[in-house]
Amino acid sequence: MIGSVLAAYGISQAQAPAGVKKYVRYKAKTGDASWGLLEGESIRRLTAAPYEAHKAETKAVKLSDVKLLAPAEPPKIFAVGLNYRSHLGNRPAPANPEIFYKPITSLQDPDGPIVIPKTALNVHYEAELVLVMGKKTKNATAALAKSAIFGVTCGNDVSERDWQNGEKKDLQWWRAKGADTFAPCGPVLVSGLDYGKLLLTGRLNGEEVQKQYTSDLLFDAAAIVSYISQAVTLQPGDLIYTGTPGTTKKMMPGDVVEVELEGVGILKNKVAGA
Amino acid sequence: MIGSVLAAYGISQAQAPAGVKKYVRYKAKTGDASWGLLEGESIRRLTAAPYEAHKAETKAVKLSDVKLLAPAEPPKIFAVGLNYRSHLGNRPAPANPEIFYKPITSLQDPDGPIVIPKTALNVHYEAELVLVMGKKTKNATAALAKSAIFGVTCGNDVSERDWQNGEKKDLQWWRAKGADTFAPCGPVLVSGLDYGKLLLTGRLNGEEVQKQYTSDLLFDAAAIVSYISQAVTLQPGDLIYTGTPGTTKKMMPGDVVEVELEGVGILKNKVAGA
Repeated sequence: MIGSVLAAYGISQAQAPAGVKKYVRYKAKTGDASWGLLEGESIRRLTAAPYEAHKAETKAVKLSDVKLLAPAEPPKIFAVGLNYRSHLGNRPAPANPEIFYKPITSLQDPDGPIVIPKTALNVHYEAELVLVMGKKTKNATAALAKSAIFGVTCGNDVSERDWQNGEKKDLQWWRAKGADTFAPCGPVLVSGLDYGKLLLTGRLNGEEVQKQYTSDLLFDAAAIVSYISQAVTLQPGDLIYTGTPGTTKKMMPGDVVEVELEGVGILKNKVAGA
Repeated sequence: MIGSVLAAYGISQAQAPAGVKKYVRYKAKTGDASWGLLEGESIRRLTAAPYEAHKAETKAVKLSDVKLLAPAEPPKIFAVGLNYRSHLGNRPAPANPEIFYKPITSLQDPDGPIVIPKTALNVHYEAELVLVMGKKTKNATAALAKSAIFGVTCGNDVSERDWQNGEKKDLQWWRAKGADTFAPCGPVLVSGLDYGKLLLTGRLNGEEVQKQYTSDLLFDAAAIVSYISQAVTLQPGDLIYTGTPGTTKKMMPGDVVEVELEGVGILKNKVAGA
C-alpha cells in the first residue's frame, strides 16, 4: 500500500527536484489544524505557515493518518477572469487582468464537498493554477512581484453562471464566485517549482473536460501580481486563482470534479446538494 | 478642554442611553493596538474584541492620549449598492440587495488619509451606515440576522467612478471599491443603539453633500444580513457597508470628507495624492 495515498492525490513518489518543497495543512486524529512539510508519505509539523518564519519538527505523522485541509490561510482571495484565449469565446482579450474577489469563507478542503446552494441552478467547475503569496507586496514591478510569490496549488474557481451572467444576473459576482465551498484548493502547496509551463487538467466524473498549459495564460503570474499591487496591497498567504481555460459544464450532486496540475497533484471534490 | 476630543469626533458627552456601549480600537503611545470601552473621555482596555468573550480592565487611558484606529478587525467586508432610492438615478430599484466585497486591506483609520491611487482620476466619497457582525450567521431568518448584528459605525465606501462605471470600466469593482484606504470607518463602534432611523450626513470641506435617514434604506440591516447568509457565511467582526444616499462628488488631494451618523460620531478623513 506504500504510495497509495500519494497516488490518490496525484503526488509524485519520485524524489522532488532540488529546491522543490511540498507543504500541506492537515488535521491529525487529535490536535488542531497544522501546517506540515510533506516528505514522501511523512508529514513533519511546522511551527507556522511555510511562508512565515517557521521550523519543521522532527517527529512525523503519516499522510494516511490525517485529514488534508486546504493548504491556505489567506487574508484575501483574488481571482482573474478571461485569462486564457480558449475561455474567451467571442469576447475580446482584456487590456488588463480582470480581477475579482472570492471571500475566505468560500475555501474548501481537498475531498470536501462543493455544496450547491438551494437557489442555484447552474454551478460550473473551473480548473485553475492558484498562486500563494509569500510577501507583502505594493506597487511591485513584475520582477519583484514574481519574487513575492511563495508557491502554487490547484484550485477550482466554482461559479454559478446564472448569478454571474444570466438574464437576472447580480450586479457583482459576490455569490456567483463566492458562495460557501466555491473555492476548493490543494492538495499540496508546492514551492520552488517552475510553474511557467505546467499542464492543467480538469476532469468531471473521470472525463477530461479542460486541458491547457499554464504558459497559455494571457497575463502570467508576475503580471497579475504586479497589476493588483498597483491598487491593493497583497499580504502573505493571499491566494490568486489565475483563470480557467476552455469551456465548462454544469455540475450535479453526486458528480466528482478533479483539477490536476503537473508537479503538484490532484484536487478532487464531490458535488453535493444543500 | 474637557470634551474637546469627544466634540471633534462628534461623540456625545451626555450619559449614553441604557444598554448603549461605545467601543474604540486604539494605539497608545506604548503598546500594541487594543480594543477599548469608551466611557466619557476614558478608555478601558478590553482583553478581546467586544463581540467576543472579553473583560474590560480597570485601568484607563485618556482618549486624548491615544491614536484611534478603525474599530474593526473584519475577516471580510461586504457592501451594498443601490440601497437608497435617492442614489438610484434612472436605475430601477434592485429586486435583491446588490452585494460586493471590499478587501480588508482597504480599511482606513479615523483621521487617516484616503490616498488617491496614481492612475485614478475620479474618486468619490460615499457616506454609509456600517454594520458590525457579532455572530457566525448562515441561512438566517431576518429575526436571527438582526440578533447577529453586534453594532454600527460610520463608513466611507470610497469609489473610483471611472473604474466602476466609465467607458473602460473594469469587469468587476475590485479596485473601484477596493484600493488601499478606500474603506475608512469609525470613530467608534456603538452597540445597543437602535439604528433603524438615524440621520446620516456626508460633508465635503464642511459643505453638506449627503443627508438621509437610515430608515430610507431599501433593504434594511436584517434583510441584508439574511440575504447574504443564504449564500455566504458571515463571521464575527465582518463589516457591511449598507449603501449611500443621494449623489456624490469627486474628491481632490487636500479635501476633507466627513461621515456623521447620529448617536455614533463623525468619521473624518483627509484626501491625499499617492
